Amino acid sequence: MKRAGIHLICEFWQTQCIDSNPQKILKVVKEAAKASGSKVVGESFYAFQPYGFSAIVLLAESHISLHYWPEFEYLAVDIFTCGKTNPYKALEVLKKSFNPKNLQLVEVKRGLI
Amino acid sequence: MKRAGIHLICEFWQTQCIDSNPQKILKVVKEAAKASGSKVVGESFYAFQPYGFSAIVLLAESHISLHYWPEFEYLAVDIFTCGKTNPYKALEVLKKSFNPKNLQLVEVKRGLI
Repeated sequence: MKRAGIHLICEFWQTQCIDSNPQKILKVVKEAAKASGSKVVGESFYAFQPYGFSAIVLLAESHISLHYWPEFEYLAVDIFTCGKTNPYKALEVLKKSFNPKNLQLVEVKRGLI
Repeated sequence: MKRAGIHLICEFWQTQCIDSNPQKILKVVKEAAKASGSKVVGESFYAFQPYGFSAIVLLAESHISLHYWPEFEYLAVDIFTCGKTNPYKALEVLKKSFNPKNLQLVEVKRGLI
């Protein structure tokens, strides 16, 4: 069964978010991308007032996104990669950085042929 | 049951992609965002050689992403929105623009509390 990519849909709960400094958050996401074997080709960050953030890196192999709701201690994480990459390596970096006490994970095979 | 957002995971098959002009693609994605009631706060585009593209818009209400594999006539679409938005309105715009002959759709409620 061929597929275009693997998409990890992750719910980080009771997560200890590092502060909402864009550079720090994006640095972590880029480290995650690198760990998976992906190349970053674009990035966006948005800070909510008074707290919370969204961060996305576009990859040559799809994308990684984070959306953080501090009021729920909830971080929505998507890791979608293709080719000779390993999205679980990116997940390890994000888990280490955001340290969720509970994590729900669904693996979706995208573009199944 | 409270939730943080709704994430539509869509597989567009046998899709007639408009050309890979970044401005045209991003215009469509922004129209989709607007239709859903979302506000665009960032964007990234990546063109593959010799063909194919990735496009993401970061929203104040999460994100919309497209990843296109022309060799499979396959477009991976994610529409993740929260608050008082309607992601299905964005889906209608994207369906109209990319005209897939087959479409698979999964609705994922993100951040279920």
